[in-house]
Amino acid sequence: METNAATGLEDPAYRAAVVDLLGVLAYGELTACIRMATDSDLAPSLRLKAKMVGFAAAEYRQYELLVDRLTEIGAEAEESMQPFVVPFSAFHTRTAPRSWVEGLVKAYVGDGIAKDFYREMASFVDEETREVMDRALDDAGTGEFIVGVVRDVIRTDPTAKGRLSLWGRRLLGEALSQGQAVAVERDALSGLLIGRGADLAQIGQMFTRLTDRHSERMTRLGLTP
Amino acid sequence: METNAATGLEDPAYRAAVVDLLGVLAYGELTACIRMATDSDLAPSLRLKAKMVGFAAAEYRQYELLVDRLTEIGAEAEESMQPFVVPFSAFHTRTAPRSWVEGLVKAYVGDGIAKDFYREMASFVDEETREVMDRALDDAGTGEFIVGVVRDVIRTDPTAKGRLSLWGRRLLGEALSQGQAVAVERDALSGLLIGRGADLAQIGQMFTRLTDRHSERMTRLGLTP
Repeated sequence: METNAATGLEDPAYRAAVVDLLGVLAYGELTACIRMATDSDLAPSLRLKAKMVGFAAAEYRQYELLVDRLTEIGAEAEESMQPFVVPFSAFHTRTAPRSWVEGLVKAYVGDGIAKDFYREMASFVDEETREVMDRALDDAGTGEFIVGVVRDVIRTDPTAKGRLSLWGRRLLGEALSQGQAVAVERDALSGLLIGRGADLAQIGQMFTRLTDRHSERMTRLGLTP
Repeated sequence: METNAATGLEDPAYRAAVVDLLGVLAYGELTACIRMATDSDLAPSLRLKAKMVGFAAAEYRQYELLVDRLTEIGAEAEESMQPFVVPFSAFHTRTAPRSWVEGLVKAYVGDGIAKDFYREMASFVDEETREVMDRALDDAGTGEFIVGVVRDVIRTDPTAKGRLSLWGRRLLGEALSQGQAVAVERDALSGLLIGRGADLAQIGQMFTRLTDRHSERMTRLGLTP
């Protein structure tokens, strides 16, 4: 284990931010794993079902990496995830997919926004933490799979494009509003941005990047951003 | 890869039985993984939820072992699982748990009966296949966890014992009836028993062992068999 001095973890505010960041990411992976496995039950073929469960299993392995890192820096994993249970549950209640393909769009678009945000935050943390985050943020082929499925659905069902585009926009709105709620509540997380020298203009640019990348994802799916 | 001659796989009837056995076991692990992950969403605490997803991930790894063995003997995994999709789905539709603890009892009792049956069948197959089956049948601590949870529930809710005992008996009935439907349809599987020298009396004894072990599991849960 590295010494705290090498990572900046001896600073309580920084440490709290890292624990929050790893905690929210770990809980995000755990719920993404559960959602993917649950949605796999609606898959129209055994091949698609098995693929989705494989992605769920990959998300569980990423969850384990994050739990290991939390343990390594002396944090209790469940305690670190606990603050994010309610906001995640609120997001999922407000965005319950009504079909298999809506679930896939949600996984791609929702996890995409969240992971872009975590990638932005990763530039503010120490190398060891960033390395774990990078591995946990790898998409393991899930995106490519979902893009293929959604494009197929749009090709065969002409009403799907409009409906799923609307769904994607709603997911962005809900994700940003829940993200904001978390940021307000978790001082340490927003402190990480400010404390590491990001000014308001830079935070604004970050949000522009997040919505730009959301639009790119929607386009990749064949949907209207 | 071992030669077919060493394993008996050059005999088409035996090979078909092994493919069926690995196929049903693989599909059983895949659906057990999905059920466990889905049910974890109802867990009353983050600790319990994370534990259940961990068990689901262990089931996925066992599924992968079985898929690897199927591939190794030249069978196509999805094709081998396909015949069992409808019977499993019928079983799950008829035994949809109405609560988190019913889901756990179902996982313990339902998977327990299935795994006992596969263990019986394992004594009729070649060593390499049996080794893979043994690893896939390891319970990875799931049973111990469920027994603890169910006993806690019974302690705190005096109406639970009667209700869950009834549920366990219903699960046995449904499992045996679906198992029978599979056996009738999959000649190769029943042929494995007969072809390897099991007579009707021995098959009868096997069913007695299966129901005996079911009773033991019910007792372990604190329920009335």
